[in-house]
Amino acid sequence: MTRPKNDTFLRALLREPVEYTPVWLMRQAGRYLPEYCETRRRAGNFMNLCKSPSMACEVTLQPLARFELDAAILFSDILTVPDAMGLGLYFAEGEGPKFERPLREEWEIRALAPPDPYDHLRYVMDAVKEIRKALDNSVPLIGFSGSPFTLACYMIEGGASDDFRRVKTMLYDRPDLLHHVLDVTTRSVISYLNAQIESGAQAVMIFDTWGGALSHRAYREFSLAYLQRIVAGLTKEHDGERVPSIVFTKGGGLWLEDIAAIGCDAVGLDWTSSLAESRRRVADRVSLQGNLDPIALFASPEAIAAEARRVVDDFHSAGPGGGHVFNLGHGISQFTPPQNVSALVNAVHEYSRQFHRS
Amino acid sequence: MTRPKNDTFLRALLREPVEYTPVWLMRQAGRYLPEYCETRRRAGNFMNLCKSPSMACEVTLQPLARFELDAAILFSDILTVPDAMGLGLYFAEGEGPKFERPLREEWEIRALAPPDPYDHLRYVMDAVKEIRKALDNSVPLIGFSGSPFTLACYMIEGGASDDFRRVKTMLYDRPDLLHHVLDVTTRSVISYLNAQIESGAQAVMIFDTWGGALSHRAYREFSLAYLQRIVAGLTKEHDGERVPSIVFTKGGGLWLEDIAAIGCDAVGLDWTSSLAESRRRVADRVSLQGNLDPIALFASPEAIAAEARRVVDDFHSAGPGGGHVFNLGHGISQFTPPQNVSALVNAVHEYSRQFHRS
Repeated sequence: MTRPKNDTFLRALLREPVEYTPVWLMRQAGRYLPEYCETRRRAGNFMNLCKSPSMACEVTLQPLARFELDAAILFSDILTVPDAMGLGLYFAEGEGPKFERPLREEWEIRALAPPDPYDHLRYVMDAVKEIRKALDNSVPLIGFSGSPFTLACYMIEGGASDDFRRVKTMLYDRPDLLHHVLDVTTRSVISYLNAQIESGAQAVMIFDTWGGALSHRAYREFSLAYLQRIVAGLTKEHDGERVPSIVFTKGGGLWLEDIAAIGCDAVGLDWTSSLAESRRRVADRVSLQGNLDPIALFASPEAIAAEARRVVDDFHSAGPGGGHVFNLGHGISQFTPPQNVSALVNAVHEYSRQFHRS
Repeated sequence: MTRPKNDTFLRALLREPVEYTPVWLMRQAGRYLPEYCETRRRAGNFMNLCKSPSMACEVTLQPLARFELDAAILFSDILTVPDAMGLGLYFAEGEGPKFERPLREEWEIRALAPPDPYDHLRYVMDAVKEIRKALDNSVPLIGFSGSPFTLACYMIEGGASDDFRRVKTMLYDRPDLLHHVLDVTTRSVISYLNAQIESGAQAVMIFDTWGGALSHRAYREFSLAYLQRIVAGLTKEHDGERVPSIVFTKGGGLWLEDIAAIGCDAVGLDWTSSLAESRRRVADRVSLQGNLDPIALFASPEAIAAEARRVVDDFHSAGPGGGHVFNLGHGISQFTPPQNVSALVNAVHEYSRQFHRS
């Protein structure tokens, strides 16, 4: 049994009583921190940073040294799985992630196979182990993966896209082919996340960054069905502790009831949803994670604290109980002034205590 | 009384009986048409095209010559109003719209004043009149404007933005200043749309392209409240006919009940919403416009027709009645093969007749 000393985050995910609302931030180890930029410079490039367990461990811990965060998240990239499938992930300066060998031909798709997470993705498992050791049971470590649909977007488009023309044309014209990509990717993500859990991840999150670009009908068939398979395939308990799962479809607020029904412990929400209304819609059957607009972090410390309090108030206005993990509704902007994150974390911790007195 | 010969679109907006589901496409006069590109080349640049009533008329009619569309929409830009306020709209090649003098200082904001639509925007009114004459009462002409929040985004950012950092920082830190921008812009949009109606527009649409980037709370305060003021200020009848209004907040599906309650006749929806569920949520108090994923138009004609039928089925699966205008959930992509639009329009017209037999 290795519950961390501060297990507030895990308790909130499992809807157990907490003393205050736990907080962590998507992309909390990232470019807004000068010490991160320094380590990345040392690594030479982003992939070297991802693939070095000791440097991944170093940047994972950086935000925890600055802010009173209630969880650490493995530093890695959502595209490690397709990279391990042989697509050749690289980062062109200022252009985001790209694949050297995107899926263009049917034979390339038919040749896809799930990678062994202890072989081609061993560097991730090594990073998880090293981070757990360095954390020394202070706060829980979150493992993560991209969702099958989100991975398929990059694998088929070859990089970021503003209209998802290739993947959606396949969806409409060759749904069988896209389902094959999603099936192989789903099996890969299940074994990848279970290997992270085996290596020490105490909660896992699936980032469905692009599911919100789909139509309501296509979302259910091409993203949610695979998220459901993943959640069903996850190791539920490790080392005597429950390992909660969080599913986050950016822009998926309209589909909340369906997402909450797939068996995950928590659903991430962006800032377009009201947490109070969301709690009512899911009848507190899952915890909710979110949902401050990351751009609020560009305001004054007073305005940031006021916005943070509004998010906490929103959640608790739906009544007592429920599970809430405070987060942004999207990754923190690289241009965020770091001191503004302190204002946010402190406001959430201080203000939320009143709602958790028994 | 000047009801057009084909008034199916107007009847659907007013939830009167129709023989088939009318269809038009956002950005139907645009770059996917070679004849549009030819006229634009002749104009020299986009602003010349907007500001020439005869060329604006020419491109407005181009898609109607190709496809059996049930409405024409004024060819213009959503940013004509801030241009008329003196901000200096221009289009940098491949970069989208920009302002020479974006709002940066408080004094610039305090100096804003609504433009006289018959003076600085006279070219728009002249285009409306010329198009009405050329249409010769065949199909209705839609006038339009950007929403105050969407205009404010461009006015404050100075161009397109992927995070709206400037306008949102003002929203969080100086809400009074942003409200001032929105108030002046709202008064401008009301007189602009009423001048379009006076000049011959038979329906009006307000494009709230960026409202969906706001938090649920900020949307109500900084976008919807102003949309409501506009709808309240619109001329409701002209030339003996009702002039219906359509409000479209891209990404606003979560807020549908609130949008439907502001007094507009129809609400535009993107493809993330189910039309059946949306009809139930608004209890058919408004018509719905939408909502095919524009990227479906890259599929085969058979797949396009199947997707179009699914949208029509979705709407009618909620029961008889209601008002539906078929459209895309966003503007048509410039890369769309024009012949695919024929497949779409024909499928909607043919397939929908069965639902409209009395």
